[in-house]
Amino acid sequence: MRKNIETFIACNSDYKSAGAVLFGAPYDSTTSFRPGARFSPRAIRSESFGIETYSPYQNKDLMDKHVFDGGDLELPFGNSKRALDMITKYTRKVLRDGKLPCMAGGEHLVTLGAARAAAELYPDLSIIHLDAHSDLRDEYLGEKLSHACVMRRIWEVVGDGRIYQFGIRSGDKSEFVWAPGHVYTRMFDLSGIEDTAKKLKDKPVYLTVDLDVLDPSVFPGTGTPEAGGVSFNELSDALFKLSGLNIVGMDITELSPVYDQSGISTAAAVKVLRELLLLFSE
Amino acid sequence: MRKNIETFIACNSDYKSAGAVLFGAPYDSTTSFRPGARFSPRAIRSESFGIETYSPYQNKDLMDKHVFDGGDLELPFGNSKRALDMITKYTRKVLRDGKLPCMAGGEHLVTLGAARAAAELYPDLSIIHLDAHSDLRDEYLGEKLSHACVMRRIWEVVGDGRIYQFGIRSGDKSEFVWAPGHVYTRMFDLSGIEDTAKKLKDKPVYLTVDLDVLDPSVFPGTGTPEAGGVSFNELSDALFKLSGLNIVGMDITELSPVYDQSGISTAAAVKVLRELLLLFSE
Amino acid sequence: MRKNIETFIACNSDYKSAGAVLFGAPYDSTTSFRPGARFSPRAIRSESFGIETYSPYQNKDLMDKHVFDGGDLELPFGNSKRALDMITKYTRKVLRDGKLPCMAGGEHLVTLGAARAAAELYPDLSIIHLDAHSDLRDEYLGEKLSHACVMRRIWEVVGDGRIYQFGIRSGDKSEFVWAPGHVYTRMFDLSGIEDTAKKLKDKPVYLTVDLDVLDPSVFPGTGTPEAGGVSFNELSDALFKLSGLNIVGMDITELSPVYDQSGISTAAAVKVLRELLLLFSE
Amino acid sequence: MRKNIETFIACNSDYKSAGAVLFGAPYDSTTSFRPGARFSPRAIRSESFGIETYSPYQNKDLMDKHVFDGGDLELPFGNSKRALDMITKYTRKVLRDGKLPCMAGGEHLVTLGAARAAAELYPDLSIIHLDAHSDLRDEYLGEKLSHACVMRRIWEVVGDGRIYQFGIRSGDKSEFVWAPGHVYTRMFDLSGIEDTAKKLKDKPVYLTVDLDVLDPSVFPGTGTPEAGGVSFNELSDALFKLSGLNIVGMDITELSPVYDQSGISTAAAVKVLRELLLLFSE
Amino acid sequence: MRKNIETFIACNSDYKSAGAVLFGAPYDSTTSFRPGARFSPRAIRSESFGIETYSPYQNKDLMDKHVFDGGDLELPFGNSKRALDMITKYTRKVLRDGKLPCMAGGEHLVTLGAARAAAELYPDLSIIHLDAHSDLRDEYLGEKLSHACVMRRIWEVVGDGRIYQFGIRSGDKSEFVWAPGHVYTRMFDLSGIEDTAKKLKDKPVYLTVDLDVLDPSVFPGTGTPEAGGVSFNELSDALFKLSGLNIVGMDITELSPVYDQSGISTAAAVKVLRELLLLFSE
Amino acid sequence: MRKNIETFIACNSDYKSAGAVLFGAPYDSTTSFRPGARFSPRAIRSESFGIETYSPYQNKDLMDKHVFDGGDLELPFGNSKRALDMITKYTRKVLRDGKLPCMAGGEHLVTLGAARAAAELYPDLSIIHLDAHSDLRDEYLGEKLSHACVMRRIWEVVGDGRIYQFGIRSGDKSEFVWAPGHVYTRMFDLSGIEDTAKKLKDKPVYLTVDLDVLDPSVFPGTGTPEAGGVSFNELSDALFKLSGLNIVGMDITELSPVYDQSGISTAAAVKVLRELLLLFSE
Repeated sequence: MRKNIETFIACNSDYKSAGAVLFGAPYDSTTSFRPGARFSPRAIRSESFGIETYSPYQNKDLMDKHVFDGGDLELPFGNSKRALDMITKYTRKVLRDGKLPCMAGGEHLVTLGAARAAAELYPDLSIIHLDAHSDLRDEYLGEKLSHACVMRRIWEVVGDGRIYQFGIRSGDKSEFVWAPGHVYTRMFDLSGIEDTAKKLKDKPVYLTVDLDVLDPSVFPGTGTPEAGGVSFNELSDALFKLSGLNIVGMDITELSPVYDQSGISTAAAVKVLRELLLLFSE
Repeated sequence: MRKNIETFIACNSDYKSAGAVLFGAPYDSTTSFRPGARFSPRAIRSESFGIETYSPYQNKDLMDKHVFDGGDLELPFGNSKRALDMITKYTRKVLRDGKLPCMAGGEHLVTLGAARAAAELYPDLSIIHLDAHSDLRDEYLGEKLSHACVMRRIWEVVGDGRIYQFGIRSGDKSEFVWAPGHVYTRMFDLSGIEDTAKKLKDKPVYLTVDLDVLDPSVFPGTGTPEAGGVSFNELSDALFKLSGLNIVGMDITELSPVYDQSGISTAAAVKVLRELLLLFSE
Repeated sequence: MRKNIETFIACNSDYKSAGAVLFGAPYDSTTSFRPGARFSPRAIRSESFGIETYSPYQNKDLMDKHVFDGGDLELPFGNSKRALDMITKYTRKVLRDGKLPCMAGGEHLVTLGAARAAAELYPDLSIIHLDAHSDLRDEYLGEKLSHACVMRRIWEVVGDGRIYQFGIRSGDKSEFVWAPGHVYTRMFDLSGIEDTAKKLKDKPVYLTVDLDVLDPSVFPGTGTPEAGGVSFNELSDALFKLSGLNIVGMDITELSPVYDQSGISTAAAVKVLRELLLLFSE
Repeated sequence: MRKNIETFIACNSDYKSAGAVLFGAPYDSTTSFRPGARFSPRAIRSESFGIETYSPYQNKDLMDKHVFDGGDLELPFGNSKRALDMITKYTRKVLRDGKLPCMAGGEHLVTLGAARAAAELYPDLSIIHLDAHSDLRDEYLGEKLSHACVMRRIWEVVGDGRIYQFGIRSGDKSEFVWAPGHVYTRMFDLSGIEDTAKKLKDKPVYLTVDLDVLDPSVFPGTGTPEAGGVSFNELSDALFKLSGLNIVGMDITELSPVYDQSGISTAAAVKVLRELLLLFSE
Repeated sequence: MRKNIETFIACNSDYKSAGAVLFGAPYDSTTSFRPGARFSPRAIRSESFGIETYSPYQNKDLMDKHVFDGGDLELPFGNSKRALDMITKYTRKVLRDGKLPCMAGGEHLVTLGAARAAAELYPDLSIIHLDAHSDLRDEYLGEKLSHACVMRRIWEVVGDGRIYQFGIRSGDKSEFVWAPGHVYTRMFDLSGIEDTAKKLKDKPVYLTVDLDVLDPSVFPGTGTPEAGGVSFNELSDALFKLSGLNIVGMDITELSPVYDQSGISTAAAVKVLRELLLLFSE
Repeated sequence: MRKNIETFIACNSDYKSAGAVLFGAPYDSTTSFRPGARFSPRAIRSESFGIETYSPYQNKDLMDKHVFDGGDLELPFGNSKRALDMITKYTRKVLRDGKLPCMAGGEHLVTLGAARAAAELYPDLSIIHLDAHSDLRDEYLGEKLSHACVMRRIWEVVGDGRIYQFGIRSGDKSEFVWAPGHVYTRMFDLSGIEDTAKKLKDKPVYLTVDLDVLDPSVFPGTGTPEAGGVSFNELSDALFKLSGLNIVGMDITELSPVYDQSGISTAAAVKVLRELLLLFSE
């Protein structure tokens, strides 16, 4: 008799033989508008059975990959520091074992935990960041550890010229004043990502996809829907252009299933995750 | 590193040492009104983390029980005969291994599969049946294998005087004409269940709880909500009165999470299941 | 080939041979809080196929009754006067043809249209009124024709001592000051309705059930949910006590399907309507 | 007094004088992911009153057409074979009476029933198939009669080179391996449909539109939302290019109103149906 | 201690020093399909805290503007004439005080109230009208004051050649027959709005945006979703082309939060309103 | 021209002349299951306009009371310590000004902030605590400041024999083992609250109502619905029995509007709050 094991579809490799490790970081305590991203990893797994393992876009099949689904970290709600430390520790182990960490948030703050671990191992780490929001505030409501500050915190780790943002269409005025010279920002769409891909050829890259870069019509189930985003095909085309890069860690964040009554946001997240795993895992 | 294993809360025994086996029967192809009971086992597991393992009602803790969560059967939608055969086969094995099968439907038709297996091993099997609907039709829209006929089919297996129904408040006129002499029916509430409990002392009993016996205010997420049902406390009190019976198999059915937008139906189902496991498993 | 005719379940008599006429009054333009009662008649018909035609409570079957479903009136949104005139005209014809009008609102204001027609034919008409709200305001936001004033307007037609209210649990202070001497009001529950039934024996009675007399747990889908109402069984028991009265017209109002995501309110309304038709139609 | 007859808007011709016959096939028992397509025909009729009868796209008015709305078939849930036989029988009669059958599913499997009838009368029948999924599996979970196999079953009837698929963006790898030589498949979008239209000029064609060819943002209310689909204008433009073809039967399928909380999917389905009737009925 | 004052984000100027006055007109009594637009102003304010005050599109910040949020008018449901008079009166005062009125509906009928006031002060007023529906009926269900007739009523005020419609994709045939010679109508999209902008340079213009001009995927929460609309970026680009016009009054209408379960419609409305205030207020 | 001031209905006193101060504590960062209580204060205010100011239960009118609505505190998500300090500071000021603080949470943890302030001023403070959960854990997921530990933390402040719990029906086994000798706990219902009222006559009491003490049928919109709770009338009857007590502070917590699709939970919370203000404010 088999045990009940619910993993993301076809991610049933064991840890040892896996090339990539998928894990959930169900944390959303600093979400300032609509919480619920904590339920994202569970929803992504559950709904993954609504798609195929095969991608006709890439002509690849998840059945041919070796991905271990490590389940969810048990993060303490209301204690961001400790939650981030746990994420860093887990990611560090995965990286040291020579595997690709692939994290499903949670709110965007969780990226800080994983990116810190990647930057430890790869001091010359660059970040490719797809998002509606620039997340470059120095603090938010008095807090340094906030989803609205996550790229600023990561910039403190990796430094100037290492962060490449795409799709940004919202932020405080001060963020846009600060950004030039510190990070590269492509406003409103994902154009030019192939240039960034060329530039970062062979360099270690952490890829973070805040799914609210998608238009709210495509991805309503998120904490802060921001009109005027990209379509699913625009996002997946951009991701395909990163093919061949040395992605050493990646994540998707900000799916909030509570606001996804129709289920299309979760279905989109699941498909993005499948394409990412097919692109970058072995 | 641990694997991701999502079971019903605290049901993490292995099969061998388990006294009870929980499994899902996600089938709803004959549902005539509002489908979706197929998603019930998954929802029950997922939401079980919202309750405690300890019951102050019984002063027992699920942590002290040995329950194996066998996951869900993969049943073929649209083929009731084959689906029922798979359920019978699984239940039979559990019973032969000396364990208590506890099934989470699915629509009520799935009970036929499990009850048949129980009747094989226990030819003098009785059935305690809590439900809003008598389910005694001989056929429905031309079909013999329908949720609306399930107790009639089970009656064909166990015979007259073996089925005890409680809480019935809906049915075709012909069902109520047919019932007397064939099955015992308590209308509208659960009164007198202690008399049935006395009568069936030491006899093998299969217990089937169609959760729509609950009032729709308590349990809106079901295929055919029928006003005028019992409260949660009335249901659990009735179940506690069955304590000490020789329950050889049991199930809960007809949770349809799609119609449970607020989540209270799933939370109620989870609590009923916890109480049942605490009552009858070891 | 048959045409597609969707009526309330089993209400497929033709007009001529019918003893009762069911019709919808989909108007909600004066609803002050949450509109949507306009969709009620359509929802009631559509969901009526989720219940049985047979009532085990009364041991009667709608298949044995002769009810004509006249469909919905096409009422002009935003013009209460004209809408009420159309309702009065339709009800008058049904009454003159010797049939029982049974109206499905719409907001409660529609009762004024039907009750006026009944009072024309039966000058000694009494009103039995089940509701959470007393609806006795003289005006509301400057309007005389408002759901919040409907019983006051009807009182202007039938006079003192003719209106019997039950279940009232909300109102402006002025309404409760005005009521004594003009209308009989039973607060909070339906107790004593058998006394009213005795008193009105053989007299013509119009019965109006604002379904929000039910507790919001039982009937969430309504414009103004008011906590602390009666259960479904309390309501149906009260209605059964009216059996034998000379009901010359009746209605149910204030189901708002938009707020009935789980469908239990519509299912309850459908069951109330079935019981009413079984009680009072031939 | 008029009876209550709810048809699709303006489809109030009688059968005899009708050039087209609209009917519902409310079946979804083989739906493997999210059921509910059974409620589609009812929802389509009910919501059709939210649109105009006039199409400014085609400058035609449904008031000038003669369409009979035959209501819904009463199909037995859980018995696919019998359900399909009933669909075939109904479609055959419509075709023999010289009228255009226009079916509203239900899940996509129902197309098999209608296409079989069309292939009987038109042995050289071709199929134009718009869909997100190729539906070419030989079996699914052990079943031959499944929505996931419907085009394979139809291929068994019409043979090689007769099926033209557009918009396909999901499937099992084996389906894409099998397809070439058997069916024509346009991946991802609807480009080139005008070439197919030219090729099929004057030949009998059955047109089946699985509405999930639309992007989930446009059409969230469906059993298996698949990101990356076409817009409403892309779909309607493609349909307009089929103008003048000899369409002998057509259908729309896979609207699942349960997942259409906002109502936009039903509104889109209603508009597609209006345009189809304006395009191909007389 | 501060009082609780909930305004649209950053619209906290006092009346006297304000250049623009935002106010709500929560009326929807003539809505013929799905009501609920009455809740729009409250939802817009409440959700405005989910966006930034800064617009990267215009590089302007609402913090630098002086907008007074006047709250909502208390309009009498069911009495359109009186409601419109109240709107006219309020708008007239704002205009006479030299400020820009910016109204948040409510159904589209409310525009008549505001446009009448603007036409009083500016007899040569033109109207720019973005909408899915032409709203040019002479009457609807016997009513002259209906959302479906609002532009016809306004035409009676401003006369031929003064109304410029864009994005129209739905209407009764008679509306399209009547329009030429009376109003300018751009079908299906917003093309050519820059020509209209040139033509109306320096003339007083009232701008009315029925938000259902947006595609239902972007804006599901509306009374009559009409497939085939424009994207958010297409709408905002069109609005930016009106920059520099002499806008003397403006409104957004037809958000119905009840049908906006995911919240994306409200978020889009909030963003449109922010951009409008940044474009035209001081 | 008036400013837009949205307060809880009729709570429009100014601070100085107010006898009671209502304020919101929109914090939910430690919620372990379903977040969203942060939206509660705003929802309570907004929906308060759906009820009357007059209570027929108490024959009192909120128009006759002097309550200042202080709006919501701006609490930092993800920093429980700082959030609690802000609550304590605000409550302390209200108490020192001789007014009754009435807080609307937020998750239950916020009670710690207010109770601490009350215990400062009233060293002999007792707590009456209505709840489904005992909240007596010493820590939860490693955190001391968690909603699951709030009564334990308060016990650390007030000491043994000062906390009176009612309606408790869920908890970890260890909580029930620890409780006796430390706190008084009435299981499952609210019986005996009049004895507690007698005992605490003339003593300072802080009253905290976790609204999930209500049955989930009555109050579905909460973070952790727990079947088997009390009815609305049982709750209000219990509160009326506290009439005359020296309540020095009070709160209602754990409404999560996100899970209150039908709105009945918010309507119930609003009514509880009205009754509390009528009972204890001047």
